[in-house]
Amino acid sequence: MPARLTAEAMGTFLLVFGSISAALFAADFGVGAGGTSLGIGFVGVALAFGLTVVAGVYAWGPISGGHFNPAVTLGLAAAGRFPWKDTVGYIVAQIVGGAIGTTLIVLIGLFGPDGWLRSAQDGGFASNGYGAHSPGGFGMGSAIVAEILFTAIFVFVILGVTHPTRGTKLAGLVIGLTLTLIHLASIPIDNTSVNPARSIATAIYGGGDALLQLWVFLVFPIVGALLAGFANRALFDGRTLG
Amino acid sequence: MPARLTAEAMGTFLLVFGSISAALFAADFGVGAGGTSLGIGFVGVALAFGLTVVAGVYAWGPISGGHFNPAVTLGLAAAGRFPWKDTVGYIVAQIVGGAIGTTLIVLIGLFGPDGWLRSAQDGGFASNGYGAHSPGGFGMGSAIVAEILFTAIFVFVILGVTHPTRGTKLAGLVIGLTLTLIHLASIPIDNTSVNPARSIATAIYGGGDALLQLWVFLVFPIVGALLAGFANRALFDGRTLG
Amino acid sequence: MPARLTAEAMGTFLLVFGSISAALFAADFGVGAGGTSLGIGFVGVALAFGLTVVAGVYAWGPISGGHFNPAVTLGLAAAGRFPWKDTVGYIVAQIVGGAIGTTLIVLIGLFGPDGWLRSAQDGGFASNGYGAHSPGGFGMGSAIVAEILFTAIFVFVILGVTHPTRGTKLAGLVIGLTLTLIHLASIPIDNTSVNPARSIATAIYGGGDALLQLWVFLVFPIVGALLAGFANRALFDGRTLG
Amino acid sequence: MPARLTAEAMGTFLLVFGSISAALFAADFGVGAGGTSLGIGFVGVALAFGLTVVAGVYAWGPISGGHFNPAVTLGLAAAGRFPWKDTVGYIVAQIVGGAIGTTLIVLIGLFGPDGWLRSAQDGGFASNGYGAHSPGGFGMGSAIVAEILFTAIFVFVILGVTHPTRGTKLAGLVIGLTLTLIHLASIPIDNTSVNPARSIATAIYGGGDALLQLWVFLVFPIVGALLAGFANRALFDGRTLG
Repeated sequence: MPARLTAEAMGTFLLVFGSISAALFAADFGVGAGGTSLGIGFVGVALAFGLTVVAGVYAWGPISGGHFNPAVTLGLAAAGRFPWKDTVGYIVAQIVGGAIGTTLIVLIGLFGPDGWLRSAQDGGFASNGYGAHSPGGFGMGSAIVAEILFTAIFVFVILGVTHPTRGTKLAGLVIGLTLTLIHLASIPIDNTSVNPARSIATAIYGGGDALLQLWVFLVFPIVGALLAGFANRALFDGRTLG
Repeated sequence: MPARLTAEAMGTFLLVFGSISAALFAADFGVGAGGTSLGIGFVGVALAFGLTVVAGVYAWGPISGGHFNPAVTLGLAAAGRFPWKDTVGYIVAQIVGGAIGTTLIVLIGLFGPDGWLRSAQDGGFASNGYGAHSPGGFGMGSAIVAEILFTAIFVFVILGVTHPTRGTKLAGLVIGLTLTLIHLASIPIDNTSVNPARSIATAIYGGGDALLQLWVFLVFPIVGALLAGFANRALFDGRTLG
Repeated sequence: MPARLTAEAMGTFLLVFGSISAALFAADFGVGAGGTSLGIGFVGVALAFGLTVVAGVYAWGPISGGHFNPAVTLGLAAAGRFPWKDTVGYIVAQIVGGAIGTTLIVLIGLFGPDGWLRSAQDGGFASNGYGAHSPGGFGMGSAIVAEILFTAIFVFVILGVTHPTRGTKLAGLVIGLTLTLIHLASIPIDNTSVNPARSIATAIYGGGDALLQLWVFLVFPIVGALLAGFANRALFDGRTLG
Repeated sequence: MPARLTAEAMGTFLLVFGSISAALFAADFGVGAGGTSLGIGFVGVALAFGLTVVAGVYAWGPISGGHFNPAVTLGLAAAGRFPWKDTVGYIVAQIVGGAIGTTLIVLIGLFGPDGWLRSAQDGGFASNGYGAHSPGGFGMGSAIVAEILFTAIFVFVILGVTHPTRGTKLAGLVIGLTLTLIHLASIPIDNTSVNPARSIATAIYGGGDALLQLWVFLVFPIVGALLAGFANRALFDGRTLG
């Protein structure tokens, strides 16, 4: 396997393993116990998602570009920044890496407290969801609008900060912090996807409803990413800026 | 439309859409339920405001300068760093971008839980406010002093970190983190404006009182920004520093 | 007044005004109300302290060096990095800037909810303290050890990251984040000083006990800073490193 | 003592003293009091760990490389980035520095509220642990898998960001934030080691069970680090990347 596919798999593994561990082990630690808690809440989960990307982009980005997300790969292709012919290999590597991430969380859970793993799976294993499976009870329409918009924002920011002449060496930091922002804003809506590899990785352990709703988190992040990719090209890359 | 007006509109859209989503969807998630909560609180909202600016400044700043705030645009003009003649176009783009941000939050809310949108609007839709509409019950005098001082601080910092010779490539990060600081310190006073475009964007969905109090959050951020712009020129830009 | 004294005064003003606002307006917002709260807690206050320094160091550091703290000024002098003869002017500017910071918080509080200002002052106005005035009930010995050690750490880090050949352009960010770390670790002990200008600024509005205990937060941060300054010179600056 | 061993000892001292202070003084401040609290929780502790590393790597990294962790030193040796012959000296310096860190926390605690120190020690003094000593009740198997994986991730990231040609000047920031991520994800499992020097420093004050379980937090972080070191060499350093 070429090193860059290994890098994409490892980066997506880190993204999923680190973030979903934070969500499942730490988010609600002690919540509901009638007092205060030590748990990290949505702030901690949002930070975890962003920091996995900061780490991954600087560690493996110089090898593969550091996408770690099928929507990002397709958005970059739409923007003319990544060859379409390489997208399939990248996406397969990302999905495999992400699935290994949740699988190893299951392994940790096997040695956990009695019932922990069953309970985590019954609770959806941090899968994305809408309706009865939205943390805040938001419907499919909310999830669709949110996934399109937040993924489009994510791809616009990535295209801006990695622009060949207008970009920044802080790109990896900015991209990660943007993912943190996206989670701060949208976890209550649908647990935040903007990344089909992350959605697949949790759905495979999240039960039947997670799998039934999965298509929303495959289709609409990609729709948002493609819209942003094409729009960015038209707005900012395809002409002299004035 | 020139690319830089598009960039200002998109950056202000991101600022408002990301931050106000965090405030409305996530800040008080589970608060008041008699136990502990997963909500992001004021810390999460403060982070969200800052991170929208970090993202926007690095993504679109090289195109437009990355103001995303009418007070900043006017403060930069007062400091001699931006042409007065371009201020109107920038401000219009910022107001439009911000208003699209809250409008799309309304769209997400339309598919939300029963009564969510009505309740969010009855609660002011994260509008700035004083007196009965201040989170902590602070009066108009408090809001005026806070908006002048915190906007002046914001503009001083921006002018410092973007100085042609004394500036830093970390400017976007520092500016965003300064906005986080400002929110950490002042949300309880008046929900923190320092940005008339943000105040307009929420007031249009926040009900009559939000609109009645809006003038405070248009006038005093601009007063603070102009004071800082002129003062910075006199103190640090207009003579040899000793 | 030379620009660099203005810069020191403004930076210390920002440090005190921003951080103490966070502590007084936002830290315990809603705490004790029998449920969960939106308040920023010690995490938010720690972030606020750090971010004021990040902002100030990049905004005014190129003018004055960005000390904003008498202990830092003296520690740098002890390390041979700042002229002893300039320390008095810097320290006066820092104390004046800090005192203006808390004075303007009082002004905001004058227009606050009934009793807010009285209550904030009765609670010590975020002054440093030990014994009955320590958040966690720690005694004078704890405060002395903590102030010496944490200020020494702060000065060691500052001297390292601003070293003429081994330093980093991220110095301002690292210094600010180190101040955040120091607050995360030590607010419960004595509300964290490591900065006599910050301690004076709050003690003047914090009542008799705050003034009586103030000497501890003048003397021991300076002791720690001087120890670090001299030690750093002996350990890392005065010989060829092997 | 060569300056670089001093630097390793000081950096590990800072890591342990800063982070474990945060864990013992601030994490659960007010938790359990039937309302909300000001405590920093696991989010604050995770930030504290990361920020000690950010501070230490930029302050002393140019002198010693900034490992502050026996597992990192061994992982770098396995990767061919650090001479095996120097590992023993580094590890001794790290263990000594860490032990001084917890010893000074004990000193602060001696002047603390009645019973504070006894209670902190009875609670394990923030030692790593599994089974009855895991915050979330996770067993030895969970701890082993978590320590191997998270330490391997940590070392992979370090090797990536410090690569001679593909590395980044942001390395210290990224490494620290990665340690924050690791704590966000895994404190509930075993209090997070990934660093034998940190585990030793707390176990010596954490009572008999902490000492009995200590071997897990010596062996498996090192196993993870060595695996990552050798694997990184094979995957990314030993051939032309394609």
